[in-house]
Amino acid sequence: MSIENISWNKSFGGWHKQYSHYSEVLGCTMRFAIFLPPHITRGDKVPVLYWLSGLTCTDENFMQKAGAQRLAAELGIAIVAPDTSPRGEDVPDDPEGAYDFGHGAGFYVNATEAPWNRHYRMYDYVLEELPALIESHFPVNNKRSISGHSMGGHGALMLALRNPSRYQSVSAFSPISNPTQCPWGKKAFAGYLGSDKTSWEQYDSALLMRNSAQPVPALVDQGDQDDFLAEQLKPETLVASAKAADYPLELRMQEGFDHSYYFIASFIDDHLRFHAQHLLD
Amino acid sequence: MSIENISWNKSFGGWHKQYSHYSEVLGCTMRFAIFLPPHITRGDKVPVLYWLSGLTCTDENFMQKAGAQRLAAELGIAIVAPDTSPRGEDVPDDPEGAYDFGHGAGFYVNATEAPWNRHYRMYDYVLEELPALIESHFPVNNKRSISGHSMGGHGALMLALRNPSRYQSVSAFSPISNPTQCPWGKKAFAGYLGSDKTSWEQYDSALLMRNSAQPVPALVDQGDQDDFLAEQLKPETLVASAKAADYPLELRMQEGFDHSYYFIASFIDDHLRFHAQHLLD
Repeated sequence: MSIENISWNKSFGGWHKQYSHYSEVLGCTMRFAIFLPPHITRGDKVPVLYWLSGLTCTDENFMQKAGAQRLAAELGIAIVAPDTSPRGEDVPDDPEGAYDFGHGAGFYVNATEAPWNRHYRMYDYVLEELPALIESHFPVNNKRSISGHSMGGHGALMLALRNPSRYQSVSAFSPISNPTQCPWGKKAFAGYLGSDKTSWEQYDSALLMRNSAQPVPALVDQGDQDDFLAEQLKPETLVASAKAADYPLELRMQEGFDHSYYFIASFIDDHLRFHAQHLLD
Repeated sequence: MSIENISWNKSFGGWHKQYSHYSEVLGCTMRFAIFLPPHITRGDKVPVLYWLSGLTCTDENFMQKAGAQRLAAELGIAIVAPDTSPRGEDVPDDPEGAYDFGHGAGFYVNATEAPWNRHYRMYDYVLEELPALIESHFPVNNKRSISGHSMGGHGALMLALRNPSRYQSVSAFSPISNPTQCPWGKKAFAGYLGSDKTSWEQYDSALLMRNSAQPVPALVDQGDQDDFLAEQLKPETLVASAKAADYPLELRMQEGFDHSYYFIASFIDDHLRFHAQHLLD
């Protein structure tokens, strides 16, 4: 598994770097970004927060707009941001170029339907291949947490709920909480997974949270002025599941905030400190 | 002078807003962004930091990427980011679409050469029209500071050096320090101001700093891995002028940093605290 550095910027005493690599799982060349805190120059191995972005994003949105590096550099946490789907001319895209299916919209599932099942395997990529790559090439330890926004908030919660031994903690901004019951999720799951809706349930956080044997501490922030709140995000389904299953979820409704990176930037420090409690102890 | 709100996002307890308005000075419709700190809800009038962006930028780059809102919200400072040139179909652009002349490259001068002299009057816009607009529409006081990056660093320093009574303090990241002597400046000044180079000198900070009757406290940060350092930026010319004129300039060379917003984000808090000393006393 080789990787190629394609950019680097010094950032708050640490480094923001972009790499490309060939993904066996996805069958295409992928790009990811990593923030490395200054602690690595002292020989320390640092834990990693994985960040999953939302629809239309790449590895760049979070690194450019969230303002996470200041506190991550202070705390000593690396951050890894993958792309949001397989990419490239050989990777099939939505025939009409929709923003919510195909390129930029992998939904962190393993597709089973042709032609998507050859490349659209973001679940395996984020869970297995990418961490193995990160842990073999960078001075990181094996403590991992995961966070994300919107489609990526769904991905973070779902991955942590299904793989509690892989993650110390999970958080999300404005997650698609109950994708089997909202338009974005129904469209994506029908396309990638087919018409048998029982296969969709393994990717629905509100459902998974009701049957969790090993809870992962979870923090969710949701703006109450988010245009997608009622139709697509449905945080009340998470709250109900957490209550029913006595799951350790803290969900905060944030007054006046919307779906943008201005919202994420306003609370990213809280999320970093939350993950630090679990990554650094 | 009417303005139209075109977007708003809650941000760190304050608000990021974009407005459009017709500029009499520039003869076209312009967009600007403003960050308003939470202090205004208590009836306070707050001072304003004007931010001038670099080549190719709009009002959005700084607001999305610099991470300034966190500390500005805490300190109680508004930030205003104008566009970098007049815009629109009626505004002449570089015939070859160059990134360093025409749209996105106003260089904060008042053009004297046709066809540029009708619209390209960013000096008057930033110095007079925009502050008058801001001070008539928002709960701000008349304390102003100014900062910027690259072409905008040139603009900030030049405007403060020529108008010391208008600004409490000035700062810059990677400014074009001596534009009469670098390729970017020579191209822009020849185009906007014509071949008489004596007319260029009023817009050259390294020259202006040698003859300053009323110094404005100045902070400049420059990355030593900036690709434009030697050919375009020439910070050593500012250092020499400050030394010759005993000007209150602190210029910091920052090891390992480049020309990007990752550099700006790493030190924007220092600049905000510097301006706060002068805006809030």
